[in-house]
Amino acid sequence: MNFLEERILKDGHVRPGNILKVDSFLNHQIDVSVLDQIGEAFYNKYGSCGITRILTIESSGIAIAALTARYFKVPFVFAKKAKSKNIDGDVFTSRVHSYTYDKDYDITLSKKYLGPSDKVLIIDDFMATGKAMHGLLDICSQAGAEVAGIGIAIEKGFQKGGDELRKQGYEVTSLAIVDSMEDCNLVFRDQEEL
Amino acid sequence: MNFLEERILKDGHVRPGNILKVDSFLNHQIDVSVLDQIGEAFYNKYGSCGITRILTIESSGIAIAALTARYFKVPFVFAKKAKSKNIDGDVFTSRVHSYTYDKDYDITLSKKYLGPSDKVLIIDDFMATGKAMHGLLDICSQAGAEVAGIGIAIEKGFQKGGDELRKQGYEVTSLAIVDSMEDCNLVFRDQEEL
Repeated sequence: MNFLEERILKDGHVRPGNILKVDSFLNHQIDVSVLDQIGEAFYNKYGSCGITRILTIESSGIAIAALTARYFKVPFVFAKKAKSKNIDGDVFTSRVHSYTYDKDYDITLSKKYLGPSDKVLIIDDFMATGKAMHGLLDICSQAGAEVAGIGIAIEKGFQKGGDELRKQGYEVTSLAIVDSMEDCNLVFRDQEEL
Repeated sequence: MNFLEERILKDGHVRPGNILKVDSFLNHQIDVSVLDQIGEAFYNKYGSCGITRILTIESSGIAIAALTARYFKVPFVFAKKAKSKNIDGDVFTSRVHSYTYDKDYDITLSKKYLGPSDKVLIIDDFMATGKAMHGLLDICSQAGAEVAGIGIAIEKGFQKGGDELRKQGYEVTSLAIVDSMEDCNLVFRDQEEL
């Protein structure tokens, strides 16, 4: 069991409807030492891949991307969920469906910050059905950027988003994969390599 | 001239309507080495104040808060701008007016993560009129938490939000204070102590 799985068992809470609450250390109050370990784990996996840029989506991916980019010594960029007056000029846009809120929204990224010479590591805190990730992959495709890997803190394995991306050939690294949470009992997928 | 003022002059862009664009290194694409220097500067200023928690607001404050909290070795927490299903239980709420988008919005913070025993450093990337900061101060007041200081990357000095807070007795540290940007000419306030 790795550091993140241990922390989830210690401080995570399972709620009805397959909801896993980790707001005490990962996505509302944040324990930076955990983020630092997450960033280091992604660096151990992708540090030799020639990554030029870390890509994430606001808001809860930002802190993990920041601590990860610190290891890689490359800039990170985050897609915005709303049309922002803070973005200049041309943007890449992709439409994403949120199951949590049952609505579509657009994500945008300035064309200045992603291009064909980029080798990208995409980072997010959670993956379930993978809809937001498909939006980020769509933006990489529009930019002509190469996706070297996808780094996720917690994947809900039973919602299949991660495994579908693996079948499509993406290198997906999730530090904790929850394969089942029935009766509030968390079952992590065995991942020997991590 | 400090590292941030130099970087603003090098990579910032002034747009009509007193808009300062720093999206190439601070709030869309992010240069983590700059954030690391910002975090270190806040630690040099407030490191001996017994800070127990860093507080910020999504989204663009998150990365700076993360790198700052790393120096302080304390957790950080970010107020959310929308009612989120990811927050459990009781929340502190404050209403904020956005001049950029000319609308009111609520910010929320779980009551679990701020309380009377906390000594808080509030962090944000920008301060202009200070409306978002008043929302964060209101939440600290509701929580009974002590505000030890306010750390801002870039303050628009001519919009007075920072100086009003200083008059009220708050310890506001802005690493770059833009006192004028007329005719696209940036004038920084002299701050010998930084």
